[in-house]
Parts: sequence; C-alpha cells; structure tokens
Amino acid sequence: MARSLGRVCLGFHRLGALSSAPPPPSLLTSSRSVRTIFAPAILGLPSFFSKPRDFSLPNSSWGSEMMRLYKHYNSQCEVEMEGGEKQEGPWQRLPSYNRFLKYATGGVYLSKIIQSKARLFTRNNRDTGATFEYVLFFNSEEQKCVAIFQAGHLLEGPPGHVHGGAIATMIDTVVGAHANIVSGPVVTANLNINYRRPIPLGSTLVIESSLIKKEGKKVFITCKVTSSDGSKLHTDTTALFVSINISHLLLGS
Amino acid sequence: MARSLGRVCLGFHRLGALSSAPPPPSLLTSSRSVRTIFAPAILGLPSFFSKPRDFSLPNSSWGSEMMRLYKHYNSQCEVEMEGGEKQEGPWQRLPSYNRFLKYATGGVYLSKIIQSKARLFTRNNRDTGATFEYVLFFNSEEQKCVAIFQAGHLLEGPPGHVHGGAIATMIDTVVGAHANIVSGPVVTANLNINYRRPIPLGSTLVIESSLIKKEGKKVFITCKVTSSDGSKLHTDTTALFVSINISHLLLGS
Repeated sequence: MARSLGRVCLGFHRLGALSSAPPPPSLLTSSRSVRTIFAPAILGLPSFFSKPRDFSLPNSSWGSEMMRLYKHYNSQCEVEMEGGEKQEGPWQRLPSYNRFLKYATGGVYLSKIIQSKARLFTRNNRDTGATFEYVLFFNSEEQKCVAIFQAGHLLEGPPGHVHGGAIATMIDTVVGAHANIVSGPVVTANLNINYRRPIPLGSTLVIESSLIKKEGKKVFITCKVTSSDGSKLHTDTTALFVSINISHLLLGS
Repeated sequence: MARSLGRVCLGFHRLGALSSAPPPPSLLTSSRSVRTIFAPAILGLPSFFSKPRDFSLPNSSWGSEMMRLYKHYNSQCEVEMEGGEKQEGPWQRLPSYNRFLKYATGGVYLSKIIQSKARLFTRNNRDTGATFEYVLFFNSEEQKCVAIFQAGHLLEGPPGHVHGGAIATMIDTVVGAHANIVSGPVVTANLNINYRRPIPLGSTLVIESSLIKKEGKKVFITCKVTSSDGSKLHTDTTALFVSINISHLLLGS
C-alpha cells in the first residue's frame, strides 16, 4: 500500500495535481533537468509506453507574442558556461499533462484513476488554440512563477472577451503550481480576484505570482495578470493555499 | 447604427453575455414565458432558421439528483389556477445558449460576431455531461438565483475532484446572471471565494446567490455552493459587479 501510494504521489507531482501543480521542490532542485526527471524510464515504466504529450511545448496555434515570450524565458532555463558546458539557468519550464498517472503503475487506487476518463480542466480540449494555451516557468531564487497564456475562442464570457471564470482558472493554476513548489500538495483555500480590465479573446497575457509568506500549512501568494508587454493590468489577486495529505483525496476520505 | 446596436443588445441579453447572464428584467417580468419571448419569430428571423439549442434543458447525462432538483424548481415556474388556467410561478428557468447572436440579424458588428468561432466558456463542449451541466432559476420576489450544477469528468483539478477554476467559473456564471437581472449588462469587478471543502467529480451541487445591495452602478451579491441536499458547504463567495455600456465591448473600445 505504502509503495503504491508513493508512486501515486510521484505521479501526482509529475502531472501537477491541485491546479496543475508542478513537481515538488525535491525534484525541482535536482541537478537534472525537469524533462529528464520525468522521463518514463524513471517512473519504472515499460519502454513501449509512449511519452505523454507535454502541453507546455509550442504548437502551431501559438501566436508571435506567445512564441516571443516563450523563447525569452526558455532561453534562461539552461545557460552555456565558458567551456561549452550547459548548466541550469535561473528559470525552469514546468511540464504540463492532461491527466493523472496514465503512464505509471500502481495499486488499486491508481488502477481506478487509470480507468477514469477524468482530464485536467485546463488541458481537456484536443483542438490546439481553442481554449487554454499556456506554459509555466519557475524562478527559485526570486520565488516567482510566470505563465504565458494565450486565450482561445472557446473561453468567451462577455461578447468577444474572456470569461471571468476562465481568468480565475488560469490564476488558480499558476498560484496553485507556485504553492505546490513551495509547500508540496496543496488545495486552494481562498482566491480574492479584482478584475480591472476585460481581456479580448485571442490575447496573450503574462501571469506572474509572487510568494508573500509561508506560515505552517498556509501559503500566501499574490498574482497579477497583465498584457504581454506589461503595460495593462487586467487582474490582481491574493491567494491562500493550504497543505494537505494527498492520500486523503486519492482514498476518497 | 442605433437599430443594429439595439438588436445586438437584445441578442446579448438573450444569450446571456457577461457570465452567461439571462434576459433583462424588462423581459423577465413580461406576462409571456421566457421560452416564448425568445422564439425566433420575435427576433424577426426567417422561419427556416432552426431554434438554437437551449443547454439548460435536461439531457441523458443528467443524474437522478440533477433531475430531482430540476423538477423541483421547474414545477414552480408555472402554477395551475383553480379554473385550470396556468400562471407564472415564483421561479423562472433561464435559458442558456453557447454563442452570441447566431440567430439574429443586424449590422456590421453583429456580422463580425456571427462569423466568429467564439463560444461561451461554460457551453463550449459538445459531449453532454463532460464539463458543465447546469440550469439556472430566478426568483424575483426573493431576489435569489439558484443553479443546479453537475460537474463532469473533464473539470478535474486535484485527482478525482473539481478544479478550483471550474468552481469559480460556475460562481461567476450564477452571480453574473443574477447581477445582470438586477442591473442590466455588467462585468465582474471582484470575486472573493472561500474554498471550504473539495468537490468530487460527478457531484451534483446547488449554487445559490442572494442580492445584498445595489449602489449606483455597483451590485453586491453573495453566493454559496453546497451539496445537493444542502448538508455540506463547499464554497462561500462575495461578489461585486459593475454596470457597463455593452456597446463599448461590442465596438472594441
């Protein structure tokens, strides 16, 4: 049982539960890259298992502004030293998948999840560009998370503009990922969102979360959504997350 | 221009812009039923136009709890008098569509919207039961809005549970609809959501919003999400909406 749950938790971190959270700090601070850490072989999977699609990588729907910002942060994930050797840079790209544990093996709870049709809310649409296109980067020195987000045409709320709930979804995703890095598995306890300016469909936005403090099981984070050039503030948010024992969720307690 | 915009606004109200808002009070207080008011003929459409799908009506994915609650409120939308005549009851079901203005006619702005692939965020999935299944009812005497919501398997956040953003989306949808009835076209200005208890995927929930006050352009509303029997509180929210001139959004200003 313990072994199964251990694997469940590994998979959980890998796929970013609780608002698409990224891997835990123990993995992020490894000397290996995020991509290497989550290779199927390390999860003990048969080699014939195909690699899951990483939704945080560029696709044909990404516009020029999305690509410009992606390249800006991605180029800082690895830096070349004088001797030509490559080292980790200040930023790390966080991979993103659409379901839990599909590619791992485990016990009865895992089996239930594998059979499930459940998909991560932000990655549930197969049409690239139609809903949430985004990629997250984390900077451990600055304790910041940045997401680049392109809002697709199926996210409409007010005519021609992004639904307030879709914006809240991206905020929860980014601050949830950030809280997960800081504190391991967490759940959202409070989101207080000020909507300052409507967002036209198709926009590319920057979502930046900053750690305020950690107190016991509580993690306090602020988050801003701005236009891609930073000139327009669309929303500002304070968020509270609380650490949980992930097995409680998996066991349905 | 004025005529076109007038029609735009009619369509806007009809399809529930800004968080899937319902028709304005002027239509809701009509002696005709909501269904009759929004018949294509009244919108001046050719008879060969098919009626748009009303997503708030039952489908095969609705579980027994969803159907029980739907029947409970729907039975109070029309009451039979002593002589057998039917009259409006205390509740009104609010229809729900997946795009703006598809079935109306109008000017250049309307034409642009008709050509658009944009779809309402909460109604963008064709697979019934996969994402948001919900129906809204409004009680004008009590100034309350109630939604019955069944959370589909594509709304996952934490493993096996609903994403915090999907819950925020439903809250924004319900309080936005309520604010729209009270004050005409509005946008979300603030959502302050306390997440008290995770929601398992597949759950049927009751979302109830209550008007606190209206001050000038501001509308203050509270909202609770509970289990279908009311025994478990999942979230409580305070929300602020602000009236806008909808033509500003449509004209892209």
